Amino acid sequence: MEPWRTAISSSDDEHIWIQGYDVTQLMASATFADVVFLLHKGRLPSEAERRLVDAMLIACADHGPGSPSAAAARTVATGNRVAPEAAIAAGVLAIGDAHGGAGLACLQLITDTMNDVRTTGATIAAAARRVVDDARAAHRRLPGIGHRTHSRDPRTEVVFDIARTGHVAGDGIAFMLELEKAVAEVIKPLPINVDGAIAAVLYDLGFPPPLGKLLFIVGRVAGLSAQVVEEYTRERAMRIKIPVTYDGPAPRELGTIKAGR
Amino acid sequence: MEPWRTAISSSDDEHIWIQGYDVTQLMASATFADVVFLLHKGRLPSEAERRLVDAMLIACADHGPGSPSAAAARTVATGNRVAPEAAIAAGVLAIGDAHGGAGLACLQLITDTMNDVRTTGATIAAAARRVVDDARAAHRRLPGIGHRTHSRDPRTEVVFDIARTGHVAGDGIAFMLELEKAVAEVIKPLPINVDGAIAAVLYDLGFPPPLGKLLFIVGRVAGLSAQVVEEYTRERAMRIKIPVTYDGPAPRELGTIKAGR
Amino acid sequence: MEPWRTAISSSDDEHIWIQGYDVTQLMASATFADVVFLLHKGRLPSEAERRLVDAMLIACADHGPGSPSAAAARTVATGNRVAPEAAIAAGVLAIGDAHGGAGLACLQLITDTMNDVRTTGATIAAAARRVVDDARAAHRRLPGIGHRTHSRDPRTEVVFDIARTGHVAGDGIAFMLELEKAVAEVIKPLPINVDGAIAAVLYDLGFPPPLGKLLFIVGRVAGLSAQVVEEYTRERAMRIKIPVTYDGPAPRELGTIKAGR
Amino acid sequence: MEPWRTAISSSDDEHIWIQGYDVTQLMASATFADVVFLLHKGRLPSEAERRLVDAMLIACADHGPGSPSAAAARTVATGNRVAPEAAIAAGVLAIGDAHGGAGLACLQLITDTMNDVRTTGATIAAAARRVVDDARAAHRRLPGIGHRTHSRDPRTEVVFDIARTGHVAGDGIAFMLELEKAVAEVIKPLPINVDGAIAAVLYDLGFPPPLGKLLFIVGRVAGLSAQVVEEYTRERAMRIKIPVTYDGPAPRELGTIKAGR
Repeated sequence: MEPWRTAISSSDDEHIWIQGYDVTQLMASATFADVVFLLHKGRLPSEAERRLVDAMLIACADHGPGSPSAAAARTVATGNRVAPEAAIAAGVLAIGDAHGGAGLACLQLITDTMNDVRTTGATIAAAARRVVDDARAAHRRLPGIGHRTHSRDPRTEVVFDIARTGHVAGDGIAFMLELEKAVAEVIKPLPINVDGAIAAVLYDLGFPPPLGKLLFIVGRVAGLSAQVVEEYTRERAMRIKIPVTYDGPAPRELGTIKAGR
Repeated sequence: MEPWRTAISSSDDEHIWIQGYDVTQLMASATFADVVFLLHKGRLPSEAERRLVDAMLIACADHGPGSPSAAAARTVATGNRVAPEAAIAAGVLAIGDAHGGAGLACLQLITDTMNDVRTTGATIAAAARRVVDDARAAHRRLPGIGHRTHSRDPRTEVVFDIARTGHVAGDGIAFMLELEKAVAEVIKPLPINVDGAIAAVLYDLGFPPPLGKLLFIVGRVAGLSAQVVEEYTRERAMRIKIPVTYDGPAPRELGTIKAGR
Repeated sequence: MEPWRTAISSSDDEHIWIQGYDVTQLMASATFADVVFLLHKGRLPSEAERRLVDAMLIACADHGPGSPSAAAARTVATGNRVAPEAAIAAGVLAIGDAHGGAGLACLQLITDTMNDVRTTGATIAAAARRVVDDARAAHRRLPGIGHRTHSRDPRTEVVFDIARTGHVAGDGIAFMLELEKAVAEVIKPLPINVDGAIAAVLYDLGFPPPLGKLLFIVGRVAGLSAQVVEEYTRERAMRIKIPVTYDGPAPRELGTIKAGR
Repeated sequence: MEPWRTAISSSDDEHIWIQGYDVTQLMASATFADVVFLLHKGRLPSEAERRLVDAMLIACADHGPGSPSAAAARTVATGNRVAPEAAIAAGVLAIGDAHGGAGLACLQLITDTMNDVRTTGATIAAAARRVVDDARAAHRRLPGIGHRTHSRDPRTEVVFDIARTGHVAGDGIAFMLELEKAVAEVIKPLPINVDGAIAAVLYDLGFPPPLGKLLFIVGRVAGLSAQVVEEYTRERAMRIKIPVTYDGPAPRELGTIKAGR
């Protein structure tokens, strides 16, 4: 078998290097957010970039036991008390298109639109307007825009503030602001939500679309871990009783089918 | 890298063989239960053995959407509408020690006790009595024995009937019957439940302990598949709202912690 | 919380019913393939339908330890010797778009095209021709068509023979045959492969697109179970050594980053 | 259904609180390591505690594509290009007893032994000596002790230095040092490895045994994310070809088995 290639990390009998940095030096001097950035970008972050990674991971870390990822993790934990990795994995698997997927969809949208902008020479504002018109025509919701209850999402402001203060804000944030403006003109005023803010910043940090979901997963695993420990500590095995209504066929006779026929 | 070894299946550009049998011949003439047996035992089953595999897989196939495996699968499916494999995997992960684990524990108990019997020359009855005495002294529940509501488990009788009629019944069933007798003498009358019956038969079919859980998984995946399709078909994304009570710290000020400190 | 609805199975303290049939009666008289069909269709299969389910599950059951699903299961098993459910789940997760996904894509293609046929009144032959023309124009491969080495796939013939003999063959098989014909005219002669044959038959049995992947999973879990048992039985923990070539940055000094900054 | 209880986080339409702290304030001022600590301990860490969490997460973050967790994630990614959550989950599932399990086993050992110490009034040194004697008598390896190639593990020193400087070092570190001493006397000089160092510190931070594995998972998910992105970016689907040697039965005829019998 041909060797697998990697540019991420290497080791010999006495060292592990992550992107060339000795892991013991990173342990002594860096933060986990530094290493998350390093693993994906190949260089250490600036202070502002590091603060953005922290802010994004924290924004995703936990949303209570009732979110699909935590509910799946805790449900598995009630049946599986000895393999916490199984519960964490189940929680990760719930992070699909409907739960946690807006970040990926929004980062993909920004990436695709900015590629168009570079190709066509259109302005970001014009490109954003076309995205909104297309979505409206197709009755499609725009990822990263809108919030059930907020007229503004305070998490968006925290993320954008760090990005601006640290001179990280670029086309990603610019596009999302134009998108918000175009939505207000064409449809109605709707805020950039935290998924949209994270996608904008991930774009400005130079991350590819899968990070729109993967960063959410990295952050959320911390919350899943806490949820699973709480399940093990406070609850008994098999405690979850989902109420069920059956509306299928009534009991019936099996009739003529025979074993082995 | 050294090649991986397998004795299960092989293929060339024009064939797949499972344990030496051409897969097209198996497709034309065998049943899935034949192949489940073949994959794990290296030979095709007798008619009675095949009927036992079918009966065991059917016994495990589904127990409604509220069992932890189905609840986990459906919870993942509400967050992840495009990757049904994720929902199935989450359901499989709930099959741990507390859910679906009795079969594994019981098959391990039978295997260990029968090894002792062979070493010590004790009778199966004496060995079963000692198992019950030990469990009682340690306040441990015996796997495969007892049922919430039944004084007898009708599924046990179906499985044992096929085994006896087909001359497959051996030390596994003999041991479980002695165990039931000893429990009745030492504790109180309790029936062999379906997990105990399956473990007994798996032992008599010559399967190792992990099959006590794996056969449950093979059967249950069929039910999980149906549960996931029903979730996709009848329900909308993110529809599950788990009611949650929070009893942690009240809102509090963050105080002196500073970004990057 | 509102009860979850299901039309699949129900139970009381003394019974489990699958689609209204008592599970003990199914255990005594039915095969697993009968129950796989029943769980998804709400009725028991005819003899030919049951034989098709068996043939399809067998076709998917195992393809050796080197397929991504088995390789993932065995890799997890080398790190996790006590939770076989983790290894099975990892194997299931490899069944995505590139591995095992052709069945889903082909069943979706058949379903969409036949919906068009019903709407537009086009012939199946014309619809198949358009599908081929479109795929050719877009340089897209057609799912269910072509085989690395075969000019015909013998598994396709087994499946189609059972379908025809049992009078189950319908528009699904008819469409795939027209597709094969159109491919031969427009591109070059390429056979219907087993994924295409299964998709055709699933359509004719009335199954929705997700079954194109889920049936593959139900069958493959049997093979994964055998692969995991073989890994536990024949190999030691952590035995897999993937050869790796590192081509990232050379060792470098960490420089000015400071703990907590 | 009774509500699920949690003391971890809460939310209303306009806020998310983690342990009472508003998530936007945490995003603006805290690091991810602060929040990992907060989620599991219910309070914010001191500077030294936060640095220990960072150091431990970094120590676990990546060990190249050939470790079972990364190999499983990349194998799933070759078959599943559209659901990165599936690849991450598979990687998490490889973190069992043999891979990443030493931390859990060591934290359990420390917890159990220190409970004994408190009950019996034995010294930590005497307790450590008995642990070593027992392990030697049972030919059992001690978790957290020994390293393939090192006479000392530099990562251990980093972790212990931060703990000591920050006055976090307690009975966990004391016990591991006594264990190292007893091993040197009874068996041969062997260093405390990084798993043992992390277990010692987790004990001194007041974390329960499951964190021995869960903290490893939280850290490793960052590396798995980078490995999966690299797989998607640099490699093609289905690229992994595991070399396989088949040593099972030779091709044979199916004989008398008949469809449906």
